[in-house]
Amino acid sequence: MSAQEQHPKKAFGWAARDSYGVLSPFIFSRRATGENDVAFKVLYCGICHSDLHMIKNEWGQTVYPLVPGHEITGEVTDVGCKVKKFKVGDRVGVGCMVGSCHSCDDCNNNLENYCSGMILTYGAKYHDGTITYGGYSDIMVVDEHFIVRIPDNLPLDAAAPLLCAGITVYSPLRYYGLDKPGLHVGVVGLGGLGHVAIKFAKAMGVKVTVISTSPNKKKEAMENLGADSFLVSRDQDQLQAAMGTMDGIVDTVSAKHPLLPLLGLLKNHGKLVLLGAPEKPHELPVFPLLSGRKLVGGSGIGGMKETQEMIDFAAKHNVKPNIEVIPIDYVNSAMERLAKSDVKYRFVIDIGNTMKATS
Amino acid sequence: MSAQEQHPKKAFGWAARDSYGVLSPFIFSRRATGENDVAFKVLYCGICHSDLHMIKNEWGQTVYPLVPGHEITGEVTDVGCKVKKFKVGDRVGVGCMVGSCHSCDDCNNNLENYCSGMILTYGAKYHDGTITYGGYSDIMVVDEHFIVRIPDNLPLDAAAPLLCAGITVYSPLRYYGLDKPGLHVGVVGLGGLGHVAIKFAKAMGVKVTVISTSPNKKKEAMENLGADSFLVSRDQDQLQAAMGTMDGIVDTVSAKHPLLPLLGLLKNHGKLVLLGAPEKPHELPVFPLLSGRKLVGGSGIGGMKETQEMIDFAAKHNVKPNIEVIPIDYVNSAMERLAKSDVKYRFVIDIGNTMKATS
Repeated sequence: MSAQEQHPKKAFGWAARDSYGVLSPFIFSRRATGENDVAFKVLYCGICHSDLHMIKNEWGQTVYPLVPGHEITGEVTDVGCKVKKFKVGDRVGVGCMVGSCHSCDDCNNNLENYCSGMILTYGAKYHDGTITYGGYSDIMVVDEHFIVRIPDNLPLDAAAPLLCAGITVYSPLRYYGLDKPGLHVGVVGLGGLGHVAIKFAKAMGVKVTVISTSPNKKKEAMENLGADSFLVSRDQDQLQAAMGTMDGIVDTVSAKHPLLPLLGLLKNHGKLVLLGAPEKPHELPVFPLLSGRKLVGGSGIGGMKETQEMIDFAAKHNVKPNIEVIPIDYVNSAMERLAKSDVKYRFVIDIGNTMKATS
Repeated sequence: MSAQEQHPKKAFGWAARDSYGVLSPFIFSRRATGENDVAFKVLYCGICHSDLHMIKNEWGQTVYPLVPGHEITGEVTDVGCKVKKFKVGDRVGVGCMVGSCHSCDDCNNNLENYCSGMILTYGAKYHDGTITYGGYSDIMVVDEHFIVRIPDNLPLDAAAPLLCAGITVYSPLRYYGLDKPGLHVGVVGLGGLGHVAIKFAKAMGVKVTVISTSPNKKKEAMENLGADSFLVSRDQDQLQAAMGTMDGIVDTVSAKHPLLPLLGLLKNHGKLVLLGAPEKPHELPVFPLLSGRKLVGGSGIGGMKETQEMIDFAAKHNVKPNIEVIPIDYVNSAMERLAKSDVKYRFVIDIGNTMKATS
């Protein structure tokens, strides 16, 4: 059955139709609000770098037509009869996932993000066998378990990127114990993830050093984003002076790059957390791991309980991503700019005011 | 001043004189028993693989003449006036280190092994500027802080390898939380370290799977060493069947080898602990770290408090390395066999009965 006919609710979005990755208007449908579902009008949706990979099928798993978007905020329009936490009019958000198995160890430990049955917000097969469509669309219908509440003092546009970029950096800061006041954490990569990592770490009382290949990002990092210091990673003198001074490093860079200098910057027992996935393996020098009991770990988004905690923390500590709000008909231009890293630091589509159904 | 004259106590050992690495009798001296020192007659000394690297200068840092040996047990003959924990006749041991700074964070946290001022038991410069000589010798004089007590029920020959091989595997099992009953831990490499890792993990109540390239080690691993199961790492069917089943892996192999299959064997949040240091970097695939929040860590021996805890645990749970006791004049043959991994699983030199001063 066609995407337009398979469900009762009319829906409208923008979809990519093939690996050229050009987005264009797309009429489809959403399921009726189930007893555990929350339906909401989408107001904003962030553009994540993975949206760009997916529309162009760069990971080889894209099913077209693809409606991207997993940094979604909006206002509740309808709730199922068993929904307990939300009511019509509530400010809500949805991140990278809309389903999981609810029975594995990870689900039982509020780590649905690591469940092997986790269902991505777009381009994945839902429990009912239909394909999920993301937040570049006018309405969402999502199991309340995967809905977070957005506190009133957090603007819905700035809140959107927290639902992927935000939780992706917040969760490892907590899990790897890099969240204690007085600790010193390095942040590698000053993009969508990195700039939020600085803000969360600072809000936790952590001293933050931005590690970058570009000396010209220093002013921005320190004056606009609040980093305490800035380290040019190609400057051997700066690198030497900072050796052994960091409790952890949050590395958001996806391209392959040397880990040895980063391991050298860590104190003994320090933790290098990788959040970007290069296509080729990194080179891992082992000696620093043995002599300093250092570790290299990873992390992928976060569970629903922690995502709500992250949003509440952001609201309380005024952690807001720097965004450029765009109309939906600018989305293809935005993708071109994103491919060139020409954005400070996240595009957010104003769905509510600019997406109009053409039929 | 010559090694024979620089200190008041006559000492005798076997030393390597150059990078050919042949050991031969060597007359030297030990310092007088200082107020915090324990002097003891060496009875047994294990042969660690690093002794082999050091006598041949394979790490490029050897100072000749080199008296190796850092798995040393014996009986106290003399104690300094401020020594509180030991008395003449006590059964004692010394491992890889004989000094540290006692003022850094690591020293303050009982992690002298990670102190940048840590002084190795042999081939290093001591506080007084003289070179340290190891346990292939008749007597030792060591600061009591670096002496452990060997419980009466632990034979001094089998206890010796615990002081390096034992603590090297015990400490990461504790630090990385792989010490809980019911957990499942893989052990890669069935040598001096690996065979003790099996025994410690089993004593902690952990289920142990040996991961090996050689199917012919299965019987040995399971029947003689107590492993619960055995996995041939080159067998894709066995590997597939065991994917995602292990909480941690203790990898004792020094040669470069693929980490991807090992990361695949881990459950989500699992830990791959590297204890061997290949000369070239490993290849680190990042995707499993992100999708399963897995980590790759390292560890190097252990602090003095934990070394005593490990020895007490070994005595209580009857954890004893499998050893081949040899006379000192067999040591060069033993080194040749060790280079071919022809030992099950640790040579221990019977210093007390076979090392006689030639002058």
